Amino acid sequence: MKILKSSLDITVRFSETDPMGVVWHGNYLKYFEDAREKLADDYGMSHYEVYNYGYFTPIVKTELNYKSSIFFGEKVRVNVILERHNAAKIVFKYEVINLSNGKLATIGMTTQVFMHVKDRALELVKPDFYQSWEEKQNWIEA
Amino acid sequence: MKILKSSLDITVRFSETDPMGVVWHGNYLKYFEDAREKLADDYGMSHYEVYNYGYFTPIVKTELNYKSSIFFGEKVRVNVILERHNAAKIVFKYEVINLSNGKLATIGMTTQVFMHVKDRALELVKPDFYQSWEEKQNWIEA
Amino acid sequence: MKILKSSLDITVRFSETDPMGVVWHGNYLKYFEDAREKLADDYGMSHYEVYNYGYFTPIVKTELNYKSSIFFGEKVRVNVILERHNAAKIVFKYEVINLSNGKLATIGMTTQVFMHVKDRALELVKPDFYQSWEEKQNWIEA
Amino acid sequence: MKILKSSLDITVRFSETDPMGVVWHGNYLKYFEDAREKLADDYGMSHYEVYNYGYFTPIVKTELNYKSSIFFGEKVRVNVILERHNAAKIVFKYEVINLSNGKLATIGMTTQVFMHVKDRALELVKPDFYQSWEEKQNWIEA
Repeated sequence: MKILKSSLDITVRFSETDPMGVVWHGNYLKYFEDAREKLADDYGMSHYEVYNYGYFTPIVKTELNYKSSIFFGEKVRVNVILERHNAAKIVFKYEVINLSNGKLATIGMTTQVFMHVKDRALELVKPDFYQSWEEKQNWIEA
Repeated sequence: MKILKSSLDITVRFSETDPMGVVWHGNYLKYFEDAREKLADDYGMSHYEVYNYGYFTPIVKTELNYKSSIFFGEKVRVNVILERHNAAKIVFKYEVINLSNGKLATIGMTTQVFMHVKDRALELVKPDFYQSWEEKQNWIEA
Repeated sequence: MKILKSSLDITVRFSETDPMGVVWHGNYLKYFEDAREKLADDYGMSHYEVYNYGYFTPIVKTELNYKSSIFFGEKVRVNVILERHNAAKIVFKYEVINLSNGKLATIGMTTQVFMHVKDRALELVKPDFYQSWEEKQNWIEA
Repeated sequence: MKILKSSLDITVRFSETDPMGVVWHGNYLKYFEDAREKLADDYGMSHYEVYNYGYFTPIVKTELNYKSSIFFGEKVRVNVILERHNAAKIVFKYEVINLSNGKLATIGMTTQVFMHVKDRALELVKPDFYQSWEEKQNWIEA
C-alpha cells in the first residue's frame, strides 16, 4: 500500500468533553477532519481546489475504535495516512495518541467520494485533476 | 412594544453537557436558534423565503444571562418573542424554563440584520417583503 | 437475533449543518445518542440507573455509512435496535430515514462496554442488574 | 482598570461553520473559552486548581457583538483581558481578529461567579486562594 502521512497536535477543549469528563465520542470525527485539512495543506490539495474543479468530497463511511479515554486539557497527536487507491474514492486512516501518557486513544478510518457540485451526482471515475495531483506526490510504501 | 410569541420544548442532549454535567453555556444559542425557527414556522417566515428574496439575516449581537443550571435529560421550554422595530433589524428575546423544576434557567436576546446574498452588503432599510409580512401579523401588546 | 426496537423523530438544526448545507457527518452520532436515550426511556434502563449500580457504558466502537444527504430543516426518523448478546457489551444498530423524501440517509452501529465508576476498570462479565433487566424484556426475533 | 492579557491563535474548523460558510455564531463562545484557558495557563490559575479549592466558576453572563464574518480555514487571533474587580466575580473581555484580512471580527465579554462544589451554593465573597493569586500578578493599567 502506498501512502502519504501527516500529523496534527490538538489540545482538548472543555466544550468537547461530556459529563464523564472525557472527549465526547463524536468529536473524534472533528479531530480527524482537522488532520485531513493538515495533510491537504501539507500536500497542496485544499477544499477550495477540489471545489474549483467542480467537485466536493462528502464522507460516505466512518469507523472509530476507542482504546482509552482523553480528558479535558490533555494534548493529543492525530496521525493521518492517505491511502492510494485505484477506485474513485479517498480513504484516510487515523490514530490519536494521548501525549499526556503516550497511550493510543483512538483509531479510525473515513472514506470520501467525488460528487459534482452542479447536480450532486456521484463521479465513478477518479477526476483528472486528482489523478494528476496523485502522480506528483512522493508516496511512501507502508 | 408589539410582539409575536412562540414556544418550543427541548430535551437536553448528553452531548450538549459539559464535565460539570450541565448544559454548556454556548448551547443555549442553539436552543434560541431552534426557538426562532419554531416562531418562523408558526408565522410563515422561513430562512428559505428570506433567501429567495435575496437576503440572509446574520446575527450581529447576542446576550445571555444564566439564572440556574440545566442537567442532562431535563426538559426545557424556550419561550421566544419577536419585537416589532422600525429599524432594519430583527430582535428576539428568549427565556428558558426548566420544566423539571419550574425554574427560570436563562434569559437572552439576539439581534439580526439584513444582508444581501449577492454581495454581503448590509441593507439599511427594512426590505419590502419583510415589511409586508410584518403588516399581516396579529401583533400583541406586551 | 433477539432485539428491542425504538424510534425517534428529529428536525435538523441549522447549527448541525456544514457549509455544504447538509448535516455534518459527526452529528449523526448525536442522533444515535438521542435514539439510544429514547429506547432506554421506552424500556426503563437509564444512564442514572446504570450509574447507580456503579457502572458507566462508554462507546468503544462506531460505524456509519452515509447513503444520502440531509439538509437543514428536514425531518428524520432514527430507528434503533438493541441486539441481545451473551458477551458483556451493548450493541445498537441504527437507520436514519429522511422523512422529507422517504430515503434512507444513514445506517450505523455502536458498541458499548461496562466500566466501573470507582476505578474505570472494564467489566468482562455482564453485570447482574443488566442481566435481570434483559430477562424482563419482551425481545422480538429479527 | 487593572488587567491581565493573553492571546491565542485559532484556525477555523470546517465543523464550526454553518451553511452560509461562516463560523456559527455560538462557536465564538468556544474560542473565548479557549482564550480563557490560555490566560489561565499563562498566569497559573487552572480549572483544576479552582476545583481543588472546592469551587467551580460557572458563566452567568455573556455578550457578543459580531463585526465581520469569518470563513472556514481562516486564522483568527483571540485577545483576552481579565479585569480586576473587588466583587466575587471574574470578568473577561475578548476581541477576535481575522488574521486573513486584519479585520475585527467579534468582541465580547463573559462573567463568572464562584460556586461551591459541595452544594452548588454561590460564594458572595472572593475566595482567599483567588485573592492571593490576584495579589501575586503584575496587573497592567488599561
